[in-house]
Amino acid sequence: MSVITFVGGTTGDWRVERVQAVCGEGLPATACVSTHTKPVLLPDAGWLLRGAISNLRYANKAEVTTLKSVQEGLGRPAATCAALIPIKKSAAWWDLAQDERRAIFEETSHHTAIGLDYLPAIARRLHHCRDLSNEPFDFLTWFEFAPEHGKDFDAMLQRLRATHEWTFVEREVDIRLVRGA
Amino acid sequence: MSVITFVGGTTGDWRVERVQAVCGEGLPATACVSTHTKPVLLPDAGWLLRGAISNLRYANKAEVTTLKSVQEGLGRPAATCAALIPIKKSAAWWDLAQDERRAIFEETSHHTAIGLDYLPAIARRLHHCRDLSNEPFDFLTWFEFAPEHGKDFDAMLQRLRATHEWTFVEREVDIRLVRGA
Repeated sequence: MSVITFVGGTTGDWRVERVQAVCGEGLPATACVSTHTKPVLLPDAGWLLRGAISNLRYANKAEVTTLKSVQEGLGRPAATCAALIPIKKSAAWWDLAQDERRAIFEETSHHTAIGLDYLPAIARRLHHCRDLSNEPFDFLTWFEFAPEHGKDFDAMLQRLRATHEWTFVEREVDIRLVRGA
Repeated sequence: MSVITFVGGTTGDWRVERVQAVCGEGLPATACVSTHTKPVLLPDAGWLLRGAISNLRYANKAEVTTLKSVQEGLGRPAATCAALIPIKKSAAWWDLAQDERRAIFEETSHHTAIGLDYLPAIARRLHHCRDLSNEPFDFLTWFEFAPEHGKDFDAMLQRLRATHEWTFVEREVDIRLVRGA
């Protein structure tokens, strides 16, 4: 699968506006974030996080059909704002069976349903890192949106962070970016 | 997570009895197979495959409880036979939604139920490699059993390979091993 590398450093297409440690340890503030489809080395100062674009783990057929009909891709010219949100869930989460995780994710916490309320304005790509070696997070989610949807994005995060699912999040960093170095 | 590296080469704790290309391209026959918990380099001749020990993807709570109550771990002294079976599934499989894959895996193909019929004789550990870079397979399954259960193991594979789930398998290699270099 495609492994994407995100680098926080001195150069890159996205300028860092702020870095917030939502839960657990944060990440060093850097000037820029760059994304790479080929392996890169860790810069002298900053951080490097890798994640794989993979298959969906919880969405059912009806949800996938709805998502595909509404969502838009990354790289839209008007979407000059981005966020990179690395998340690590607890061992208790990963010890749950698939049906237990699915029930918390959607039937209890309405994760997909909440995201749908903000489509197509908020574009999103999930990267899985739990199965990669030496990665400190389980997921890296990259979001892109136009500046006028910044408040919607904040509202979406507030709703997600209030869910039962989020009680299993033990580390979360919120990195906000604007296009242009 | 823990990434395990399997190396086919001239040395190792497990001696290769036979290598069979069940479906798609095979792997070069080597004298031995060794397993490593730290990164290793590809030997001059042979092959190297990596996979991560990860969370279960389909088993529900009842199935997990049953499995845990019956299964035994690797490394039993009497289990001097092993098999390493790398598998790659088709894009059509990975494009399915979670509920569609679960239905084929268990409700239609009875994957967990078939495996349960051979517990605790056949011990098993699954390694996920689809999300790792440059890995040619999606899964590596390692099995251990005593010589007198070799026929049971073959019967289990025959049942699994006859399922609807297996119509999505596009590459499978069956490597049989005995302990002792």
